[in-house]
Amino acid sequence: MSLEAIQYRRGSLSILNQLLLPEQLRYEPVDSVERAWEAIRAMEVRGAPAIALVGCLSLALELEAGVGPAEDVAELEAFVDERLRFLLTARPTAINLGREAERLCAFARRRAQSPGVTVQGLRESIIEHIEGLLEKDREDNRSIGAHGARHILQRVPEGSVTLLTHCNTGTLATAGYGTALGVVRALHEQGRLTRVFCTETRPYNQGSRLTAFELLHDRVPATLIADSAAAATMRDRGVQAVVVGADRVAANGDTANKIGTYQLAVAAWHHGIPFYVAAPTSSCDPALPSGADIPIEERPGRELTHFQGLCLAPQG
Amino acid sequence: MSLEAIQYRRGSLSILNQLLLPEQLRYEPVDSVERAWEAIRAMEVRGAPAIALVGCLSLALELEAGVGPAEDVAELEAFVDERLRFLLTARPTAINLGREAERLCAFARRRAQSPGVTVQGLRESIIEHIEGLLEKDREDNRSIGAHGARHILQRVPEGSVTLLTHCNTGTLATAGYGTALGVVRALHEQGRLTRVFCTETRPYNQGSRLTAFELLHDRVPATLIADSAAAATMRDRGVQAVVVGADRVAANGDTANKIGTYQLAVAAWHHGIPFYVAAPTSSCDPALPSGADIPIEERPGRELTHFQGLCLAPQG
Repeated sequence: MSLEAIQYRRGSLSILNQLLLPEQLRYEPVDSVERAWEAIRAMEVRGAPAIALVGCLSLALELEAGVGPAEDVAELEAFVDERLRFLLTARPTAINLGREAERLCAFARRRAQSPGVTVQGLRESIIEHIEGLLEKDREDNRSIGAHGARHILQRVPEGSVTLLTHCNTGTLATAGYGTALGVVRALHEQGRLTRVFCTETRPYNQGSRLTAFELLHDRVPATLIADSAAAATMRDRGVQAVVVGADRVAANGDTANKIGTYQLAVAAWHHGIPFYVAAPTSSCDPALPSGADIPIEERPGRELTHFQGLCLAPQG
Repeated sequence: MSLEAIQYRRGSLSILNQLLLPEQLRYEPVDSVERAWEAIRAMEVRGAPAIALVGCLSLALELEAGVGPAEDVAELEAFVDERLRFLLTARPTAINLGREAERLCAFARRRAQSPGVTVQGLRESIIEHIEGLLEKDREDNRSIGAHGARHILQRVPEGSVTLLTHCNTGTLATAGYGTALGVVRALHEQGRLTRVFCTETRPYNQGSRLTAFELLHDRVPATLIADSAAAATMRDRGVQAVVVGADRVAANGDTANKIGTYQLAVAAWHHGIPFYVAAPTSSCDPALPSGADIPIEERPGRELTHFQGLCLAPQG
């Protein structure tokens, strides 16, 4: 079975509970917007694209099941609006979900105002819109992968390449395939990947818990390294490119991403290794002139000092 | 009470059990060479200088207690030799202990051969030789600290400085005061330290478990950071110098030290921040022409994938 963060077919949604990884591979059914809210809040699902999709798909599920007003088009539109607002309170910083919710509301408003629309017709078109998001994310990622692989191979006419990546940008963070890991996957599918080094990605260990898990599951040759070993790996293990994802890209190309990305870029620069950011256009924010304008999330110190209740550092 | 890895006065030795840090501060008595062997093997005591000292001091303790031959000088010399050989089997890579053992044997041989020496006289002179090692390590570290602080302050005529350090090079790794942390301490004592950033130092977390603990205990202003945050800290938090210790220094100045040291040096270079290695001459190995000749210890992968029995990564 291919590993996926989200399993959906019309009328049925389940998510891989990422809190249990890498020890347990368990899919949990999501049968309502409330349950999706909980899963997002508790980080059973994570990664900005995956959060947006699970939120929207849970709404599609309710619409398919006939939840909500059945008589009046305006009431159904208001229902959709209210459910999306509720979902947004799960993780206030989930920008992709906010953006998709805004678009979906605008879409529902337009459809509700078009002549002759029925409640059932509106319902169906919203479900189709949401299903389109899932398909589009998968297609975007395959395009990113193919494009990135082609670009990297321009510099390597023969043989295979060794890459280094950071954090988790794979099928577990998206609708499937991944962004930076999509590039890794595309090279692997073409038989042109020697090995990918993935960093542990402290403090939340997305690299060791998720990326290593995903690559191992898909039999992609991979080696997990400590974050601090990246420069030595670049120097001694023939790394030919570094590929990372992005939380947000400013108009001038400045990129915000998981802590450690800048350090990898400095090390890659020092070793003359090309450094790529693989992300969909939806991660670009042309309203921000430069990286200095991107708000940076500072998370609780406890994530560094504790691991599953175990204390790694003194109090204070 | 000042924090010390080793507490010794003639006839009494105890060590801080570093396996229990940072949760418990417990000193354990060491009353024999066998007990020292166990403590070194189990890593209750760690850090090359501290290992050498605990090993030798446990022998001093036995000599003071009258263990070993009492009749014959040559037999006593052989006893010392045999006890030291046994200690060396605890951690075969502990180079400092090997070097001190060799010197101590040579010293015992010379003294045993000098005219008119008695068993009691030989015993006493070996104990004094060993006690001298403890004193010398502390003095060396104070000198390193004073020298490093003076050097750094030459570039900063006024005000105080912000430093960044890696791993544990403090009182917990030495007889006291520390090498790189000795420099930090000296600046703090002079009221010239703004703050020191210490890295977590994955995979064994010497930075979070030991350095942060030590600095907090001694009320030195310190902030623990993820290893991957070092470059961003250099760029954004005004780091003026990086100071690290050394496992070994080759004739050309190339230095081997904990994984991550090279990455910090690259990041410091990129930001134009001076990078210092603080180490005693005993860490210099003039027989090795360059760093390429220093054997690098590769430790078990489990140290990265597990923490106190908890699994951080998938099997494989």
